[in-house]
Amino acid sequence: MRVGLDVGGTKIDAVAVSPSGEIIGRLRRPTGWGDDAVVESIVLAVRALAAENAIAMADIGSVGIGIPGLVDVESGRVLHAVNLGVESLDLAARAQAELGIPFRVENDVKAAALGAAVLRGATGSMAYLNLGTGVAAGIVIDGRIHRGSRGTAGEVGHISVDPRGRVCGCGQRGCIETLCGGGALAKAWGRSGALPVKDIIEAADAGDADAIRLRADLHHGGAAAVRVLVLSADVDTVIIGGGLTALGPRLEDGIRSALQADAETSPFMRSLHLDERIEMLPAGSPAAAFGAALVGAAVPEKEIVFHG
Amino acid sequence: MRVGLDVGGTKIDAVAVSPSGEIIGRLRRPTGWGDDAVVESIVLAVRALAAENAIAMADIGSVGIGIPGLVDVESGRVLHAVNLGVESLDLAARAQAELGIPFRVENDVKAAALGAAVLRGATGSMAYLNLGTGVAAGIVIDGRIHRGSRGTAGEVGHISVDPRGRVCGCGQRGCIETLCGGGALAKAWGRSGALPVKDIIEAADAGDADAIRLRADLHHGGAAAVRVLVLSADVDTVIIGGGLTALGPRLEDGIRSALQADAETSPFMRSLHLDERIEMLPAGSPAAAFGAALVGAAVPEKEIVFHG
Repeated sequence: MRVGLDVGGTKIDAVAVSPSGEIIGRLRRPTGWGDDAVVESIVLAVRALAAENAIAMADIGSVGIGIPGLVDVESGRVLHAVNLGVESLDLAARAQAELGIPFRVENDVKAAALGAAVLRGATGSMAYLNLGTGVAAGIVIDGRIHRGSRGTAGEVGHISVDPRGRVCGCGQRGCIETLCGGGALAKAWGRSGALPVKDIIEAADAGDADAIRLRADLHHGGAAAVRVLVLSADVDTVIIGGGLTALGPRLEDGIRSALQADAETSPFMRSLHLDERIEMLPAGSPAAAFGAALVGAAVPEKEIVFHG
Repeated sequence: MRVGLDVGGTKIDAVAVSPSGEIIGRLRRPTGWGDDAVVESIVLAVRALAAENAIAMADIGSVGIGIPGLVDVESGRVLHAVNLGVESLDLAARAQAELGIPFRVENDVKAAALGAAVLRGATGSMAYLNLGTGVAAGIVIDGRIHRGSRGTAGEVGHISVDPRGRVCGCGQRGCIETLCGGGALAKAWGRSGALPVKDIIEAADAGDADAIRLRADLHHGGAAAVRVLVLSADVDTVIIGGGLTALGPRLEDGIRSALQADAETSPFMRSLHLDERIEMLPAGSPAAAFGAALVGAAVPEKEIVFHG
């Protein structure tokens, strides 16, 4: 039995996965804040998942964790998980000490990418584009997370696509994240509300000129991210996930329309059929926690060496 | 013994590579125009290379060809090699029939990327950014060409980075290629001359305002391509090659300065140290032909399947 945990800023999504790869149990629990509380909430989530599904702790072969922040996959250390109040936490070692089960830790977007790829049965290459407060993607090639050399694979949110665009939190101007990141859109909108991007869409539907511009930015930003992923890594499919997918077709159809509009002037872009290569994760998809379970179960990968 | 041929619009660069991976012979010959002449010039180049280096034809185990255009690697067919007057050519089969040696064919930029990676001894991931008439990159991960799903891996030239930029040959606006492709720069410059990009640089040095703007475009476009490659595929190093490298430090230093200037406002970009991660191929580098030899020698790669 493998357990996977998607640890978010407010909740932990936990799944138990059978040896044949089926999700046989799932629960959600609140996430703690700060080092000790994060470790404790993870330990409690694993125990509760086991108890609720009549799984003996001794039958859990591994636990995988997907968590926002910079993750050292080898050591299981987490850095800069600002949404969790964590600056530097030896997460795998501490959780393993509590439960006596091997833990592996991965960046949440990368884990979700792996989960989405395997759930979808993708055999080639795909990207998981996470549209939430920020924007980042995970790339999965032949069933393996493409990690890259220094941890910036899939950081498409900080590619500038407009030298005259809004200033990004990263300091650059016109980053894709300034167009389609929930945080950047909320800031540009500047009005209060619990769900600012939803407010923007609704105000746009009602004819508000500022909101119409920001809605167009959202869709064009998503389209730009898709284009970058296809024209650099050449993934076959881009699966869109993250908090903004709560917008449903108002997100997916909008990005698709932007891709179609952008391709109208370009035979080359039309030949790529990008509008047919995007999908959106269904609401409540367990992809992120499932991907974490796969990460937990993964044996260290053999190095591939070129034999010229 | 392996032979590699980099087939360009005007010349073929051919190398013979020993079993231990050393280049033991090299020659250049003019390329023919049209299907028959291209095949004939390739066959003659292999024969001449063998004769000049006292290599028996029977000792040549494989010939690899890097060629501009769309290549079906499995069949060895070349499509749309417009600079060679080739629309659709069964290159591997025809050359193999003439010489009785197994031929493999690859896109020239991808072959050059592999050659540059192996010559450099790169063990992680790298991109080869070809700045010539057009702009494209090849990505090599762990010693293997990253092919992607549909043949657009590394097509960074057609990522738009300015919605108000010049119209690209592909129909989009503000593509990276409009900034740093030799063809696009020559068109924007609009004055006659055999080496328009060199003319632009020299006119910029002399204070011409148009030329100064285009020189800045060249450097910023190269920098944008480097950023895209690192923030999507996260390659460790970007090696710059292609015709524009004849500009020498006026190309390399300019791109490096642009990367430094762009990072000034962004701690995130500074943390990536992009200015330290670019290199330029030395003039006359045999990387493209050497990479073609490696392509020729490559056995079909085993599929990598994820074992969750």
